[in-house]
Amino acid sequence: MSVFITGVAGFIGSNLAGAMLKRGGRVAGFDNLCRGSRANLEQIASDGNFCFEVVDLADLEAYRAALGELHRRDPVTEIWHMAANSDIPAGVADPFVDYRDTFMTTFNTLVLMRELDIPTIAFASSSAIYGDHGDRLLTEDVGPLLPISNYGAMKLSSEAAISAAVESHLRSAFLFRFPNVIGIPATHGVIQDFMKKLRATPENLDVLGDGTQQKGYLHVDDLVEAMLYIRDKADERINYFNIGANDAGVTVRFIAETVVARIAPGATIRYGQGNKGWVGDVPKFSYSIDKLTRLGWRPSMGSEQAIRKAVQQIALQEFGA
Amino acid sequence: MSVFITGVAGFIGSNLAGAMLKRGGRVAGFDNLCRGSRANLEQIASDGNFCFEVVDLADLEAYRAALGELHRRDPVTEIWHMAANSDIPAGVADPFVDYRDTFMTTFNTLVLMRELDIPTIAFASSSAIYGDHGDRLLTEDVGPLLPISNYGAMKLSSEAAISAAVESHLRSAFLFRFPNVIGIPATHGVIQDFMKKLRATPENLDVLGDGTQQKGYLHVDDLVEAMLYIRDKADERINYFNIGANDAGVTVRFIAETVVARIAPGATIRYGQGNKGWVGDVPKFSYSIDKLTRLGWRPSMGSEQAIRKAVQQIALQEFGA
Repeated sequence: MSVFITGVAGFIGSNLAGAMLKRGGRVAGFDNLCRGSRANLEQIASDGNFCFEVVDLADLEAYRAALGELHRRDPVTEIWHMAANSDIPAGVADPFVDYRDTFMTTFNTLVLMRELDIPTIAFASSSAIYGDHGDRLLTEDVGPLLPISNYGAMKLSSEAAISAAVESHLRSAFLFRFPNVIGIPATHGVIQDFMKKLRATPENLDVLGDGTQQKGYLHVDDLVEAMLYIRDKADERINYFNIGANDAGVTVRFIAETVVARIAPGATIRYGQGNKGWVGDVPKFSYSIDKLTRLGWRPSMGSEQAIRKAVQQIALQEFGA
Repeated sequence: MSVFITGVAGFIGSNLAGAMLKRGGRVAGFDNLCRGSRANLEQIASDGNFCFEVVDLADLEAYRAALGELHRRDPVTEIWHMAANSDIPAGVADPFVDYRDTFMTTFNTLVLMRELDIPTIAFASSSAIYGDHGDRLLTEDVGPLLPISNYGAMKLSSEAAISAAVESHLRSAFLFRFPNVIGIPATHGVIQDFMKKLRATPENLDVLGDGTQQKGYLHVDDLVEAMLYIRDKADERINYFNIGANDAGVTVRFIAETVVARIAPGATIRYGQGNKGWVGDVPKFSYSIDKLTRLGWRPSMGSEQAIRKAVQQIALQEFGA
């Protein structure tokens, strides 16, 4: 009996697999290695309780064959669906990216769960499903849900398909609405972007926008803990939770300064105009994690601490020092 | 310059095309004739301001070729996207139905609007996006949105994709959240179901559920008026409105009795158990049309009157008398 993780070689998937194995579980996972990589699985690849296969989940026939075979060999008790496009601007430029890697992977997963009678799904949803509500506190029950990126749109579409599947064939679903998550193995994101820019021009860091954009950041270690906690404690048929830092977040300016201090002390930070980084970006939002707090969980790090830890980790990853 | 209607040969599409032509507009439309039919276009087929083509909108290549050609010949100023699966139980049995006919037709429409620089979409959304909120009044801004049918899920997914497209390339969008709509040319639905059953066994009418299930019904004539009114008066970038009857609705019992009185007076109505007709059906809901009322529109018929009119019309359609 295994837990099955989609996107297991990605940033979140590989951390999740590691945590589940540490707790003594058996884990199987697929990944198309489009954004994930075998390097991310280095620490767990030789674990006898882990098995991995390269499968493209957007290809239903390939997915059906591989999951059917796995399930016969070692029954899958639940699916943690982490596979998705994680690059928001890429999906703004080409809507097929989120359609294929987020929506179709979810849709196909649900089709196969019905065929194979797998009862429970845990899904990596996102705060991006809410769209831009200005200063309004984003609790799990706010509406309307009008996402402003294809990333958010295809995450919301996935939630919707899962919700319908719970009515027709699933026993339960866990919808984890992720905040900005940082840590290693980092594949993209603001910290890495700044480091890459500083590697090219160590004297200056050009920042998109005026630096006042403020967001909460959660370290991936906390994210994984929160997901496992919710899976353990929540017992509705559909359990949907914001996961995030328990604070108002940090500004882009804070992140830029932290990265500069670590990588290129003395570099000049040059800000742009406006507080929207790119199309599809939500400039500022207050993300409520009251529901998760009431369930009994709190993050071990605030946004500032999470940024500081991730900057150290990513600097090591990128520069080896 | 034409307005372009997808699903133009369907129940709503054909009524909408007729109303637009009556107002002096030029209308072009595609339909795959899967649920729609040429018979539905009889009244407008010879109108010089109308043109029609059989195209499957889920097939992007075919859709691109046909819409590109149309747009070169006669520029499309806006798209009214009415094409969709309209059979909720069909989509519960096979999730590919709503995926293909509702979600993919929307997704492809948005892809082509970007390519052809068509700025405005009007979309046939649904009250089914809300899911089951019990007795709670469904205003446009309620959350969470956890639909209980693939029909509702793919309508919500379509709204989400449209919302993201407004952020990236559309000028404006109109999301019409339809209630239960009745009238002719009827293709399916409770009135027709009852008539078909009575045709087979005129002595008895077996009703799924206990008959207490209560819903609002809007006549298609009112629906079309409401859509055109909103298109005319609302001026946000995303205009999302519930459209519905201005009352608490009628019970299944009322519909059964109205149909029996018209078709087979004296037939015995036999009720089943429970107040859910089928998986994915929302047993009772209160649908707020306050936002639409504030915009200045009211339906000309209440639910009872709409049912009575539709029963007369559908009886004529089905029995010719």
